[in-house]
Amino acid sequence: MNTHKNRHPAPSDDTLARLAAVVGGPHALTAPEDMAAYLTEQRGLFGARAAMVLRPGSTEEVSAIMRIAHETGTAIVPQGGNTGLVGAQVPFEGGNEVILSLGRLNRIREVDAADNTMTVEAGCILANIQRAADEADRLFPLSLGSEGTCQIGGNLSTNAGGTGVLAYGNARDLVLGLEVVLADGRVWNGLRKLRKNNTGYDLKQLFLGAEGTLGIVTAAVLKLFPKPQDHATAFVAIPAPHSALDLLALANTMSGGGVVALEILPRIGLDFTIRHGGARDPLGEPHDWYVLIELAGGEEEGALQPLMEDILARAFEEGLVLDAAIAASGTQRRELWHIRDLMSEVQKPEGGSIKHDVSVPVSHIPAFLDEATAAVETLIPDARVVAFGHIGDGNIHFNVSQPVGADTQAFLARWDEVNRTVHDIVLGHGGSVSAEHGIGRLKRHIMPEIKDPLELEMMKGLKQLFDPEGILNPGKMLPD
Amino acid sequence: MNTHKNRHPAPSDDTLARLAAVVGGPHALTAPEDMAAYLTEQRGLFGARAAMVLRPGSTEEVSAIMRIAHETGTAIVPQGGNTGLVGAQVPFEGGNEVILSLGRLNRIREVDAADNTMTVEAGCILANIQRAADEADRLFPLSLGSEGTCQIGGNLSTNAGGTGVLAYGNARDLVLGLEVVLADGRVWNGLRKLRKNNTGYDLKQLFLGAEGTLGIVTAAVLKLFPKPQDHATAFVAIPAPHSALDLLALANTMSGGGVVALEILPRIGLDFTIRHGGARDPLGEPHDWYVLIELAGGEEEGALQPLMEDILARAFEEGLVLDAAIAASGTQRRELWHIRDLMSEVQKPEGGSIKHDVSVPVSHIPAFLDEATAAVETLIPDARVVAFGHIGDGNIHFNVSQPVGADTQAFLARWDEVNRTVHDIVLGHGGSVSAEHGIGRLKRHIMPEIKDPLELEMMKGLKQLFDPEGILNPGKMLPD
Repeated sequence: MNTHKNRHPAPSDDTLARLAAVVGGPHALTAPEDMAAYLTEQRGLFGARAAMVLRPGSTEEVSAIMRIAHETGTAIVPQGGNTGLVGAQVPFEGGNEVILSLGRLNRIREVDAADNTMTVEAGCILANIQRAADEADRLFPLSLGSEGTCQIGGNLSTNAGGTGVLAYGNARDLVLGLEVVLADGRVWNGLRKLRKNNTGYDLKQLFLGAEGTLGIVTAAVLKLFPKPQDHATAFVAIPAPHSALDLLALANTMSGGGVVALEILPRIGLDFTIRHGGARDPLGEPHDWYVLIELAGGEEEGALQPLMEDILARAFEEGLVLDAAIAASGTQRRELWHIRDLMSEVQKPEGGSIKHDVSVPVSHIPAFLDEATAAVETLIPDARVVAFGHIGDGNIHFNVSQPVGADTQAFLARWDEVNRTVHDIVLGHGGSVSAEHGIGRLKRHIMPEIKDPLELEMMKGLKQLFDPEGILNPGKMLPD
Repeated sequence: MNTHKNRHPAPSDDTLARLAAVVGGPHALTAPEDMAAYLTEQRGLFGARAAMVLRPGSTEEVSAIMRIAHETGTAIVPQGGNTGLVGAQVPFEGGNEVILSLGRLNRIREVDAADNTMTVEAGCILANIQRAADEADRLFPLSLGSEGTCQIGGNLSTNAGGTGVLAYGNARDLVLGLEVVLADGRVWNGLRKLRKNNTGYDLKQLFLGAEGTLGIVTAAVLKLFPKPQDHATAFVAIPAPHSALDLLALANTMSGGGVVALEILPRIGLDFTIRHGGARDPLGEPHDWYVLIELAGGEEEGALQPLMEDILARAFEEGLVLDAAIAASGTQRRELWHIRDLMSEVQKPEGGSIKHDVSVPVSHIPAFLDEATAAVETLIPDARVVAFGHIGDGNIHFNVSQPVGADTQAFLARWDEVNRTVHDIVLGHGGSVSAEHGIGRLKRHIMPEIKDPLELEMMKGLKQLFDPEGILNPGKMLPD
């Protein structure tokens, strides 16, 4: 955890009045009770104060706000659905920053089924985008736990991951064009629908995953995909994590690359969902490890279920699978996914949880899990490792719940120490200490440890180029 | 076409001696006959002279060269297989540039089948990379006409396209990590194997497609894919270009997204391949338009052929297909692809050809073809439009062969005029005037017409940041 000395002055009353005039009184919030929802994120990890919350209604208003901010040196914190897990979207404690909430830019400008594209504004909620694609008989495959609340602008600014990455890639891979308001208020219209375009540097790449530090994404052209007409989903007990990777290879071979999700869960995770989430064990007997595997494709319902049965039968013969339950209906499919979706929240009632969002090369996952579990258990005997997630992408949420009955604050006080131990193992495997959540406030202080100086120098050069006054989300991602 | 006043002085004898010492005498070429192959590209469009050709054997030597170039202000032109079509890889006429040929960095450092990655040096020939993947029972899907000669460093620096884009994306999408030598000689080691990594700006994106103007790619971690065990390939006569798009949608639905290539060819193109390439018409009667369509996938041979038959039967019923020939063997498959592969070279014996490498949103292709053909025929009656290529990605090589018997030089003198006419139609459809070949020398002068000033300003800012002395491929891509 770290703090940041914002070098920007608190905005003057005059500046605040000018900013408020851009959006109109009702959309410029200053009362503590009005601002509260914008200042606190779901884990409550960060102290935050703001001078004002602005809720612009158009790209033009975002542009006007940034012109004033540029002129007056006012620090701006762009915010989407406020679901980020690293604090990139909340200000610091100084109270001199202005939150720019994109939520009113929530128009789906166009769904173009012929070109498999959709043009959306930054404040569109992800689930609404998924639904609009579905209504046009298309798929927008980005899917994550917070999809009912998170906004696409935040998803793109953090290069969100989720459960669809295995088949469709990260958020970065789902974008054809962007509209961005720059630090000085100028608007870059890069809203193109092209699959191929080699005319100079691919500027949109700069803003994707930049956590609002280089510009403010106000709209995007997204890729749509054919909607699979059939799914087959199974909850599978496996002997060990490496079996998940062998099962993935087998299933992709037998289905012609039809695996669209592969999520791993440990027994303790299933126990938590039964205890706190009202889930039931889909299988008769307990096992150490499970995967949720899903096939999708086809033009009509029904063909994939027998294929899933064939895959699991062969996997059973090869010793990759111990037991399995295949969803026989849409309801059962949702029940299986619900177990996976509960994994984050059911850790809360178990006390303190020290989180890691890490990735390693896919084949290193089993070794990483062995080594990191042993190291954590050496550090804190009886700590309970809850490692789950997107094993097919090499991305594990390696969470550590406190020992039963332990003091929560004393346990959480060891956050950095546990992080360091786990991250060292990750780095030893050529991995990443933030696979999908980003850096934000939470991991900024470790950037000098995980990046070589040349890489940091290039990043700071880009920041200086696009935001010379440092008014865009100061103190996020890049170390001082 | 344009020239460029290189502001760099001719390197002194001392500088040339120092550069030669880095690589060793036999790899520093100055004799005209030794340098000739590096100065002329295949279309012979560009005059070029160089002070020296350097053939370093390692990343360290590339780094040492750039340190000297940085110190002495020597302009460096990175070159791969010299197959580029826009002159990015050849120097200008001034004779003051040094060509840095990457061909000796040709080691495949690692094939990692477990992680589906391959680490290669920039000078590896694309076909060798494809072969090494194949030997590990994997697929590296980048595929283009020059694959027997082009080098991966050039492919990545130009974000190459080709026939695999429909299913696997452009070269940019096939990269997990890069090693890059910067303008001042420092080496950035970004050779990561991770599928997910959100720790700061994604720096590799800057160098992909930058045509060697921001840094020199010396190695890369590439993505590998499961090798399809089965293919089905058909040469199909269609009533009109829009039928190709309807066929694509139908085939993807029926195959669960199994279409890996869709290339359109006009009758005149088939005629050229018969006349000059020794091809034979796969169908009994002539038709106006054809597509080559390929399905891939599965775990064993034979399942896709009946599927292709079903797809074409249904397409025939729906009026999307007039006639078709399905390859019954690997030999027949290669024969069908050979027709497509011949398309570029068979235009040469027909006289002058004015080229366009354009893209529009996919659904706009039929309207674009109608409008552009009419416009060109108005401009030059009896000009012969040969429009072919990657219709599934919206990318058409809209080439114009001279009228039969016309004066070639007089026809080619109208290159810019024809370009402008076609490009205006492309831009009217929200398209790109360089879908896959890049900008290089050939299209640099039109950048101010096709990019808005803010976009050019951002690009120039990046160039200034990464190459403040302007020694990396000066005069390419960006206008002065």
